[in-house]
Amino acid sequence: MARAEAAAPEEAATTSTRRQRTRERLLDAAFDLFAEEGFEAASIEAICERAGFTRGAFYSNFADKAELFITLAAREHRRRMTELRDAIAAGLPGLDPGRELDLDAIGRIVAHLLGAISDDRRWRLLRAEFDLVVMRHPEIAADYVARDQTLMDELADEIDRLAELLGRRLLIPARGLVRLLNSGYLADLRLADLCGGTPGAPTAPELAAQWLPVVAERLTEPLAAPGRNAPG
Amino acid sequence: MARAEAAAPEEAATTSTRRQRTRERLLDAAFDLFAEEGFEAASIEAICERAGFTRGAFYSNFADKAELFITLAAREHRRRMTELRDAIAAGLPGLDPGRELDLDAIGRIVAHLLGAISDDRRWRLLRAEFDLVVMRHPEIAADYVARDQTLMDELADEIDRLAELLGRRLLIPARGLVRLLNSGYLADLRLADLCGGTPGAPTAPELAAQWLPVVAERLTEPLAAPGRNAPG
Repeated sequence: MARAEAAAPEEAATTSTRRQRTRERLLDAAFDLFAEEGFEAASIEAICERAGFTRGAFYSNFADKAELFITLAAREHRRRMTELRDAIAAGLPGLDPGRELDLDAIGRIVAHLLGAISDDRRWRLLRAEFDLVVMRHPEIAADYVARDQTLMDELADEIDRLAELLGRRLLIPARGLVRLLNSGYLADLRLADLCGGTPGAPTAPELAAQWLPVVAERLTEPLAAPGRNAPG
Repeated sequence: MARAEAAAPEEAATTSTRRQRTRERLLDAAFDLFAEEGFEAASIEAICERAGFTRGAFYSNFADKAELFITLAAREHRRRMTELRDAIAAGLPGLDPGRELDLDAIGRIVAHLLGAISDDRRWRLLRAEFDLVVMRHPEIAADYVARDQTLMDELADEIDRLAELLGRRLLIPARGLVRLLNSGYLADLRLADLCGGTPGAPTAPELAAQWLPVVAERLTEPLAAPGRNAPG
């Protein structure tokens, strides 16, 4: 880092780009191997080999496998956060400022947002790995939790903004709502994944359609609620 | 089994009791080792050694580690189901048939039920292991999912009965509500666990108190709702 800063600006930029590319390839390889074999079983050697680098490249980017893990978790969570933000910015279907929102419109908005977030089997394996690794490694937990909380706060901000866009007020704190919706949808993803082999088994968005719009409607109320006043 | 059936009734009872005790000890040992080391790392030898049995005792009870795993998951889920049923049967605090239920009373009922269900760090590790093992082993998944669905149906029946006891009607299907409440509370347990080292960090029941009573109130309505009629 110190050497790159001392170099000419152009050279520094190239070094920095190359360095970034190396990091991304190591993270991609770790994603594959953690999903396939698990965090404990995937060795640094195997990750380097999959990425096509030497151990030297690894250690000039990460102190150890734990730091790689934290960086990977942050990257993957951040990617989905951006997808959600982009989907909100792209415009919400069924949103008509002149009309009060009905359950059907909420359902279309929910489907639009869920459809925008990347999901595949490997990501679900990786999430389950994250849960276990963090519980088994206290040295990782503190950093992981801090980053996770930041992300949950950002998601809570998005929920607040979204509620305002929809002209509604939340009946529970935004952070609690984020945790509830997030864990509920993960349960749908998990069930859909496990039943994936069964013909006619519902997909995760189909499962979510059964509860998420009603929950979103009932845990919020119109900002100008006619018949219902805030308590106290 | 054929031999035990052919023996005198008393002898058969003793054999069956001893056999049951052996199974329970093997399951206890597997619980410890799966939580400590994970399903993949825990060998049948290590499980037998921890339980104080030979491999012969193992194979006369279970075909393989997968069958042991399925049996253990069923036992642990069943235990918590019984705890929930007992807690409902023991009487719900704050339930007064003459008065309509308020949020405070719902909060006390929720706290009573959550407090009755066994939970510790090892159980949370084991649950995370279950998730991963089931995703990685299709030969286990079908059986696990079938048992899990039966249990979720039983939980849904309990929710239906509970709603009736409380004089309320559910606004989403009971199975969806069970999945949502279950996954939301697991997220609380996980967060409480990860923040366990931080002074003043909330416990899982404290986290649940922020959302569960409101969700239970808003996703149900009084059976004789005065101002709100069922849609069309």
